Amino acid sequence: MNRRRRIYEGKAKVLYEGPEPGTLIQHFKDDATAFNAKKHEIIDGKGVLNNRISEYIFQNLNDIGVPTHFIRRLNMREQLIREVEIIPLEVVVRNVAAGSLSQRLGIEEGTQLPRSIIEFYYKNDALNDPMVSEEHITAFGWATPQEIDDIMALAIRVNDFLSGLFLGVGIRLVDFKMETGRMWEGDMMRIVVADEISPDSCRLWDIKSNDKMDKDRFRKDMGGLIEAYSEVARRLGILTENERPGHGGPRLVQ
Amino acid sequence: MNRRRRIYEGKAKVLYEGPEPGTLIQHFKDDATAFNAKKHEIIDGKGVLNNRISEYIFQNLNDIGVPTHFIRRLNMREQLIREVEIIPLEVVVRNVAAGSLSQRLGIEEGTQLPRSIIEFYYKNDALNDPMVSEEHITAFGWATPQEIDDIMALAIRVNDFLSGLFLGVGIRLVDFKMETGRMWEGDMMRIVVADEISPDSCRLWDIKSNDKMDKDRFRKDMGGLIEAYSEVARRLGILTENERPGHGGPRLVQ
Ligand SMILES: Nc1ncnc2c1ncn2[C@@H]1O[C@H](COP(=O)(O)OP(=O)(O)O)[C@@H](O)[C@H]1O
Ligand SMILES: Nc1ncnc2c1ncn2[C@@H]1O[C@H](COP(=O)(O)OP(=O)(O)O)[C@@H](O)[C@H]1O
Ligand SMILES: [Mg+2]
Ligand SMILES: [Mg+2]
Repeated sequence: MNRRRRIYEGKAKVLYEGPEPGTLIQHFKDDATAFNAKKHEIIDGKGVLNNRISEYIFQNLNDIGVPTHFIRRLNMREQLIREVEIIPLEVVVRNVAAGSLSQRLGIEEGTQLPRSIIEFYYKNDALNDPMVSEEHITAFGWATPQEIDDIMALAIRVNDFLSGLFLGVGIRLVDFKMETGRMWEGDMMRIVVADEISPDSCRLWDIKSNDKMDKDRFRKDMGGLIEAYSEVARRLGILTENERPGHGGPRLVQ
Repeated sequence: MNRRRRIYEGKAKVLYEGPEPGTLIQHFKDDATAFNAKKHEIIDGKGVLNNRISEYIFQNLNDIGVPTHFIRRLNMREQLIREVEIIPLEVVVRNVAAGSLSQRLGIEEGTQLPRSIIEFYYKNDALNDPMVSEEHITAFGWATPQEIDDIMALAIRVNDFLSGLFLGVGIRLVDFKMETGRMWEGDMMRIVVADEISPDSCRLWDIKSNDKMDKDRFRKDMGGLIEAYSEVARRLGILTENERPGHGGPRLVQ
């Protein structure tokens, strides 16, 4: 395993060369970062949970016909994915005001938005992922107008699916971030959902208590992150009872 | 004059009730503000110059068929305008990287952009005029998709006209801000250019020397603001030689 070529190491994951051309292995680390990595911690077991939750979401997106990079999970921390040309945009879909939207537009956290809002951020750590509009995206050639349309259509489908999925298990999908990439099949190119979708990249609030079940627990130093992520996995039916860490069952494989 | 009803006092202008229903008088003050009014100074003669320059630009926009609120100049500081329902967006058109675009996207000031870029800022001093995209604008009902299309078409026409006008007098139009409003004529509504267009709301660089001839002289404490604005007016053929302040001619009426 250790002789695989490492393609890229990011803040939360490592990409390795995959077994076939055009494939990659996406390895989930335990690193938690926030505020453009100014805050950083290792949280035992986070990578394992995100790998499982992201697998579950991507597999179901594939199943309903939303194209993604996901092929299959390989082990506790790794999944096999199709290599894509990442479009350098973080696509954020918001249903409820929170975080930077609340601050920038002066809307109280928790306010239902009049409709879902899609935002684009230019994925560039050195610039702190600045918000951009379609004008910037097309002027600088990060994506074409047709690609932006495709990305927005994907974002809406993912938001619809995730909203339903989480509602079904008593969780409010406040917002989430996704990445997309260009996947070639011969001469044909299509845009697919890439990267991960997990409590690291969503805001998830328990519908009854409003408890946060996502990375805001880390950003706001609230503690209980692994418990919250485990609860998300448990509600989705991913973790069986004795896989739950810290509940007397066997420890998650590290 | 002083018994006119004052409708609104802003950072740089005062609006009074006009002589006919549906009209207003726009009075240009000498106040210079920047960084959301954290910086403030009185600069003698600025209001007179902006009134003249804005008159010249709006009259010429009217003449080429770009609809504006402008009716006619009344005196050295005041102009008669049509009252409109202001759309709460600052519409910025950029041709060359400068200011916040340079900072946010890491593009050196003075870099020609691959094409003109239109940006929208939500006009709200308490929130520091945050940048917004079409998604925010339509979700919060600040303008409809059709109105955004109309605003962008107006912005492109104004940019084309101003680029040509300033090029003709040796000035590079780096960027400018405009406001728009809804004007009703009976049951018909159309979007027109409102507010002002002046060196307060444009970045204007001398083509030969790259000297700044706009409000950046105030933002950056460079001095020589009145001289620069006067030079813009002079090149546009607005000020006759002996109207130039500080050149021995009669002082501008205050
Ligand atoms: N299918 C894919 N093909 C190529 N790159 C991908 C794919 N999916 C995700 N990526 C990229 O791999 C990296 C995942 O690691 P991560 O730790 O999230 O990095 P980062 O710190 O850059 O966000 C991201 O840069 C992401 O854009
Ligand atoms: N034709 C118009 N009808 C109504 N309001 C206008 C019109 N043109 C400009 N305005 C508004 O008048 C105000 C002009 O004063 P200004 O000092 O620029 O104010 P501010 O500090 O709000 O920018 C602005 O708020 C602008 O939106
Ligand atoms: Mg990432
Ligand atoms: Mg103003």
